[in-house]
Amino acid sequence: MTTVKSETRPGAYFDSVVLMQLQRGLLGLPGVLDAGVVMATPANRELLAANDLLPEASTTAGPDDLLIVVKAETDTAAADALAQVDGLLARRRASADQEFRPRSLAAAAKLLPEAGWVLVSAPGRYAAGVAREALNLDRHVFLYSDNVPLADEVALKQTAQAKGLLVMGPDCGTAIINGIGLGFANRVRRGAIGLVGASGTGLQAITAHIHTLGGGISHAIGAGGRDLKSEVGAITAHQALDVLARDPDTKVIVLVSKPPAPDVATRLLAAARATGKPVVVDFIGYPPPARKLGALHFATTLSEAAEMAVQLLVMSNWETPAQLPTLKGVPVTNYYLRGLFSGGTLAYEALLGLQATLSPIYSNAPIAKDQQLPDPHRSQAHTIIDLGGDEFTVGRLHPMIDNDLRLRRLRQEAADPDVGLILLDVVLGEGAHPDPASELAPVIKEVTGTHFSVGNSGLEVVAIVIGTDSDPQNVSSQVERLAEAGAIVFRTMTEAVDYVSRRLSRYSPAGHLPVSLDRFLQTPLAAINVGLESFYESLISQGAQAVHVDWRPPAGGNEKLAAILAKMRK
Amino acid sequence: MTTVKSETRPGAYFDSVVLMQLQRGLLGLPGVLDAGVVMATPANRELLAANDLLPEASTTAGPDDLLIVVKAETDTAAADALAQVDGLLARRRASADQEFRPRSLAAAAKLLPEAGWVLVSAPGRYAAGVAREALNLDRHVFLYSDNVPLADEVALKQTAQAKGLLVMGPDCGTAIINGIGLGFANRVRRGAIGLVGASGTGLQAITAHIHTLGGGISHAIGAGGRDLKSEVGAITAHQALDVLARDPDTKVIVLVSKPPAPDVATRLLAAARATGKPVVVDFIGYPPPARKLGALHFATTLSEAAEMAVQLLVMSNWETPAQLPTLKGVPVTNYYLRGLFSGGTLAYEALLGLQATLSPIYSNAPIAKDQQLPDPHRSQAHTIIDLGGDEFTVGRLHPMIDNDLRLRRLRQEAADPDVGLILLDVVLGEGAHPDPASELAPVIKEVTGTHFSVGNSGLEVVAIVIGTDSDPQNVSSQVERLAEAGAIVFRTMTEAVDYVSRRLSRYSPAGHLPVSLDRFLQTPLAAINVGLESFYESLISQGAQAVHVDWRPPAGGNEKLAAILAKMRK
Repeated sequence: MTTVKSETRPGAYFDSVVLMQLQRGLLGLPGVLDAGVVMATPANRELLAANDLLPEASTTAGPDDLLIVVKAETDTAAADALAQVDGLLARRRASADQEFRPRSLAAAAKLLPEAGWVLVSAPGRYAAGVAREALNLDRHVFLYSDNVPLADEVALKQTAQAKGLLVMGPDCGTAIINGIGLGFANRVRRGAIGLVGASGTGLQAITAHIHTLGGGISHAIGAGGRDLKSEVGAITAHQALDVLARDPDTKVIVLVSKPPAPDVATRLLAAARATGKPVVVDFIGYPPPARKLGALHFATTLSEAAEMAVQLLVMSNWETPAQLPTLKGVPVTNYYLRGLFSGGTLAYEALLGLQATLSPIYSNAPIAKDQQLPDPHRSQAHTIIDLGGDEFTVGRLHPMIDNDLRLRRLRQEAADPDVGLILLDVVLGEGAHPDPASELAPVIKEVTGTHFSVGNSGLEVVAIVIGTDSDPQNVSSQVERLAEAGAIVFRTMTEAVDYVSRRLSRYSPAGHLPVSLDRFLQTPLAAINVGLESFYESLISQGAQAVHVDWRPPAGGNEKLAAILAKMRK
Repeated sequence: MTTVKSETRPGAYFDSVVLMQLQRGLLGLPGVLDAGVVMATPANRELLAANDLLPEASTTAGPDDLLIVVKAETDTAAADALAQVDGLLARRRASADQEFRPRSLAAAAKLLPEAGWVLVSAPGRYAAGVAREALNLDRHVFLYSDNVPLADEVALKQTAQAKGLLVMGPDCGTAIINGIGLGFANRVRRGAIGLVGASGTGLQAITAHIHTLGGGISHAIGAGGRDLKSEVGAITAHQALDVLARDPDTKVIVLVSKPPAPDVATRLLAAARATGKPVVVDFIGYPPPARKLGALHFATTLSEAAEMAVQLLVMSNWETPAQLPTLKGVPVTNYYLRGLFSGGTLAYEALLGLQATLSPIYSNAPIAKDQQLPDPHRSQAHTIIDLGGDEFTVGRLHPMIDNDLRLRRLRQEAADPDVGLILLDVVLGEGAHPDPASELAPVIKEVTGTHFSVGNSGLEVVAIVIGTDSDPQNVSSQVERLAEAGAIVFRTMTEAVDYVSRRLSRYSPAGHLPVSLDRFLQTPLAAINVGLESFYESLISQGAQAVHVDWRPPAGGNEKLAAILAKMRK
């Protein structure tokens, strides 16, 4: 026979370490078989139930109440255990009170004025308030806490951005700043690889693997798991990229995230490219546009991201943007791309590769449904058309055989003054048109160079020619005649995508960051810790200066009382 | 002043080449500025309108009617041009009638009994009927036609599969069988790389690039753009993989497709692995689970797929499945995986990597919404849990610090007789538990080896340890103690995913294929062509034996008449 007894403490706040230690204390008492000490949220109550620890009497406890449950061999043992709760809590408190600790952030900031950072691991419902207080004191924030509302995250990051401060998180598990790990962080040697991550264990796995491979880390900046959502717009990741771009000790950058929103990804990749440094990108679960786009290198796994970063660092001759083939004339930014494809897969690969730089791209065969072109006969903004699509081929030969439809569409696109670049595929081989260049070249010649009146180099036509030297059409002659007509010719889609994405890239860096952000990597890390004491201990053991705040929630965590106090203050 | 005049020929069938040539003939006549000759589908009518070629009188023409439109300088010129339509059509027919041609598939099959293939490029609405006729004659089908209903595709492929025949397509643009290109195909040297593609220009781009790189092709088997949809279930791609697995001339396989349905992808990747040959996979737009999973190599672009295939071929020491680290005991197939993670990104990477082999995998943080675990406290089928998720951490320390929740869940999963393998991450470093092995190892020892009573090696626990030799926990000691307790330990997710996916792989090959399919690669290609004459000419020019059928639709394309004829035959 076993028995389960419980006790509820309404509206009581204890930090998670205290709760864990209370639970362990109870488990060590005579006759106790199991114990649970949790805030009585629905999820936690389910967990207790799954462990046979939910007594019926507890059903009145709510999410702000502390629920203490003991399973024991006898009623007496259970009652005895619950009677010791206050004693166990007091023992804990006595040890914590041995050294002096400021009770507020403001007091801590006076005690350690050089502290540029505030680490916040207070419970989620209080965390945004603490972070705001830190920003008001002009401190960068490492916000470990989870369960912080998205709206608070957006507001905090916007405030921080305006002040030239950084908010890493919420739910930021890890960072390494100037060799000091914040939160969860592996000890790694210092080196020339800088990281930006909307992914805590992603950053840990990559930094640890880089260390194992013999490489080292300059800084690893966390952004929080939701930073790359549309609502947040990767504010922190953009700041972090900017900082690492300027940091002379960072030679290679790694950017890691769970799948970002597509529009956020496009802007962030443009920013990554604008750093001028090799960047390894691991957007986990996001189809990579290519293995390599200019100086962007796309990894498929965390361990591969680490391996690529180390390889890029040891390679003596990086391909920097300056060494890429030069572009013809000035960039055609602010003009639209139109792709006119005969091959469906080629059209799809072009969409996939170019959406990393241009977004949105409309199509009759789009990647995402919201980029469906309403009328396949009329392009809008950036558009890529598969002219071999079913809607175009009823009673008509495939565009690989019959160029009529494509030639008409080529003239139609060229007549649109907003179009800067037209992308074509020319597929040779058996079954295809015996001499596509004979029909395409004259129209290409007609439309290129005559389009823009002032200050631009004219409409560009880029052609990808798929074929072999054995094909009946003679690939070299096709390439030569298309180039003579003014087309820029590539033999693979990857090269064409790389060229076009640089040609139409719209990224303009934000200019110099406020001094407070630009300087934060150059000074030794000193920090104020609010929340988990173990994070403070870890800072000290790494040789950083730190102060721990003996933080308590307003009104001791009693929400009703806190609301009354807040009203009285008004 | 220009004028537009038109003529409608109700229910008339002409093949697309005839229509293109009529349009060109009209354009060559005096005073004609533009001309359009199309079946009057809504899409084609819009196209005419976009080219100022749509006269109001034409509004009565329907999708089965031929619409001939002429734009000319004068009314007379337009009328004169239209008067010559019959003459232009007759001229074409006379040239086509110069040599004898069978009028039916059956007749063609008698003429060339060794023809194992029928190429069908008749218009979409007739194509399924022709393909079915070919299957009835025990011929493999290359179905170029598009606009074929999906239900017809499924029915055709099921029939073919039952008979040991192959249906490539519909909308199959290309194939290379025994060195002969079908449809659109680049001329490439023969070699040891075999391809399977649900992507016409994908196959063309890869085969052409392989040739350019100095490699060669054994066979390239098209499947049609919809083969990897759930409805079709990749019937053709599975047959093709099976055939290439058996083909002694194929040493490396390339599998290319636009994004497949996830469940279809999982089964196809298992089949690819079962070939025992290195397979390069390019599922365009599908996030690769890893760079390499056993003998599967994931490419991100078409050109990279070609490069990887050539590299694999020239590498003297491929890593074949036999050379991979051996598995412990017998496979735990038919048992479920349970992943208990403390790191959210690690959980996500595990989901992504393992969904290539196991599907579905449920989670509290799933990749797709339909794999959301209804109750995070209760696993079902394959499940991977992020124990650091917000729902688990209210008033509780993160599972990297406090192992209590995970230890309870570990015992809970181990008690489930359907569970064969439990996957854990152990993240070391600053801020984390000072000695996780001290708590995890005893429970791992308790649950491993005691689970299955008969004929199996016991429950397996696989652990990924993320950490460095500088971490406070001492990574080697952690690894050692976890291994001593019975866990199989890896230092990166990629290695763990590779191990687990082989351990739980459920693929069982279909056994030997019917002889007719197994033999089709060994005999020289001979074919019957129905539709585009240029495909016949291309076969002849490549040295293949071929017969062209002078095919006409039932009742000359008049749908009403065809329906009456069909009724009369009953």
